[in-house]
Amino acid sequence: MILAPSGALCTGSFTQSFVRAECVNLCAGRLNKTNGFARAILINSGQANACTGERGLKDSLLATKALAKRLKLDPEEILICSTGVIGEPIPMQKLLEGIDPLVKHLDAHNGLNASKAILTTDLREKQIAFEASLGGKSVRIGGMAKGSGMIHPNMATMLAFITCDVSLPREIWNEMLKRVVNYSFNAITVDGDSSTNDSCLAFSAGDLLSEDYFQDLEIGLLKLSTFLAKSIVRDGEGANCLIEVKVSGAQKRSDALTLARTICSSSLVKTAVNGCDPNWGRIIAAAGRAGIAFDIQEVSLWIGSFQLMKQGLPVSFNRDLVVNYMKKKFNSKELNNDSLNIHLSIGKGDGEASSWGCDLSDQYIRINADYTT
Amino acid sequence: MILAPSGALCTGSFTQSFVRAECVNLCAGRLNKTNGFARAILINSGQANACTGERGLKDSLLATKALAKRLKLDPEEILICSTGVIGEPIPMQKLLEGIDPLVKHLDAHNGLNASKAILTTDLREKQIAFEASLGGKSVRIGGMAKGSGMIHPNMATMLAFITCDVSLPREIWNEMLKRVVNYSFNAITVDGDSSTNDSCLAFSAGDLLSEDYFQDLEIGLLKLSTFLAKSIVRDGEGANCLIEVKVSGAQKRSDALTLARTICSSSLVKTAVNGCDPNWGRIIAAAGRAGIAFDIQEVSLWIGSFQLMKQGLPVSFNRDLVVNYMKKKFNSKELNNDSLNIHLSIGKGDGEASSWGCDLSDQYIRINADYTT
Repeated sequence: MILAPSGALCTGSFTQSFVRAECVNLCAGRLNKTNGFARAILINSGQANACTGERGLKDSLLATKALAKRLKLDPEEILICSTGVIGEPIPMQKLLEGIDPLVKHLDAHNGLNASKAILTTDLREKQIAFEASLGGKSVRIGGMAKGSGMIHPNMATMLAFITCDVSLPREIWNEMLKRVVNYSFNAITVDGDSSTNDSCLAFSAGDLLSEDYFQDLEIGLLKLSTFLAKSIVRDGEGANCLIEVKVSGAQKRSDALTLARTICSSSLVKTAVNGCDPNWGRIIAAAGRAGIAFDIQEVSLWIGSFQLMKQGLPVSFNRDLVVNYMKKKFNSKELNNDSLNIHLSIGKGDGEASSWGCDLSDQYIRINADYTT
Repeated sequence: MILAPSGALCTGSFTQSFVRAECVNLCAGRLNKTNGFARAILINSGQANACTGERGLKDSLLATKALAKRLKLDPEEILICSTGVIGEPIPMQKLLEGIDPLVKHLDAHNGLNASKAILTTDLREKQIAFEASLGGKSVRIGGMAKGSGMIHPNMATMLAFITCDVSLPREIWNEMLKRVVNYSFNAITVDGDSSTNDSCLAFSAGDLLSEDYFQDLEIGLLKLSTFLAKSIVRDGEGANCLIEVKVSGAQKRSDALTLARTICSSSLVKTAVNGCDPNWGRIIAAAGRAGIAFDIQEVSLWIGSFQLMKQGLPVSFNRDLVVNYMKKKFNSKELNNDSLNIHLSIGKGDGEASSWGCDLSDQYIRINADYTT
């Protein structure tokens, strides 16, 4: 559970799926109704509470009502996020019995425990916090996330929670988070399957931040979200290698993101990385089908610092050196220096964006083929 | 090579990729220039002639010019299709030396040889012909196709060629083929990667067909194209199982196709089939992210004849029976009865469409990871 101080403002980004879990609808509805004034988020892992119909909604209402009573708050101020298997109901007795001890153990230093508690079958917890001085005042932002599981991998169910100890006007906070989520969490891919429960919720509470520092805060939030997003990919099912695809020279930033995501999602690119094969034809073919127009004669391509294409034509390169670079990045455990970098430049525009993904491996197939619900 | 009689009309569907091979641009340009009056298609396999710049264009021009000279035709009436590795130039001397023997061996009964010659590393040739009596006149349509390779699997490079021995007005023929391609070749997926060379070319030549039989002909063409399209999937890289996803009850046929294709492309659905796991949560999650709105309460789902979901809620089913059905279809060699059927009904509309795909297997990973260009 996350508890925010009185007056906290919460903004949310939710799955675009037309099959949404009941808890997602409940969160979105309440944030809308209360104009973003929320106080607490209850999180359960194990059951996604999706495709559970009326019972699912009833369970979400019951859980938030029980927590509201214990915290002496209005149920409308309580949100709930679920992650786990689709179609399975939450064991409500167990959840309700857990509320009292949960509230008793509330502690400002329990972030790490919370980030562990929300995992399903992730291999590692994912959390980070930054502190910066903005206008002489210390501002802290923190976040935690969970990614794809291995035992109940019905999908890459993603949840992320962000806190910030200064406040901002609601519209500014909403729009800032939308942009941040779009170029961090929405820029990653493990297997191309969006979930029924994907949610990112962000609290802002405290003294009002001066307008002069909005941009600084946004830079910090993007850094924080990108770290969490990359952590999810590193922990992706069967993943051995973090791939970063940067696209530059596009007309628009959003075009660059579309291209980067398409390359990062390509099964043929992902298997080429798995085989440490500098197969530039697959990268360029994936770019071609992304739906973004570009002139092939303006295209350059690099893997690491090795240029493989120039003005739309292959350039001769030392294959062994590129394979060595790919092998070094494969299975690298060097945090912050573990990504295999692909850079595609498509023209002279200043639109630039990155996407993060992982290789497609035998293990991914085995995890998802052999596991039976 | 395919030679059509004088006066033949040719229509083409080409890859939507922004990285198009030179030969694709040449074909599209010539069909436009000649109003569809083409006489011959030259096909080479081994090199895709994509990302080959000016040299690629020159080679295509040279090849079609040489064939035109040998056939005493205008070069503008000659088309060329290439399939194979991206970035590699065609060995032109070899190709030019082959033209004379190719023309000498032209024969109405050489269709099977042609369908073998266009393969790269497909395991099987893909061809079919139908004959029907339309208004007392015998009408024949034939087709051949090639799919994904195994030794140069830069992508699922698809080529298809169709012939029809009656003629139709150009606009009718163009529009008919567009619809047919959309619900056959454009409805299949092996790994989600479109190619730089995907092309379908269709000749129509002979007596003018009466308007009364346009619909009959279109039904035949769809049957023929669907057979070829399914053959490509059966021969997909690492494929053990042909999956047919039918979506019904949509507002529009095109919505049904989008939903069916999204489910068929989902890595999680494909691995579930690989593991013979009736994991309906993955199917419904894929449907949810397809971008087509539907009401979950109207959703029903079947695998084979077994209903797994009704009005948006899971129904209890005999898991062993469904697993047995999936195992029977897995590796089934029973042509025309080998597809594992998934049926999703999303409402009361009459929009219905199917998509065909295959399971995602260890072999797919090994083929595409271990192979190095």
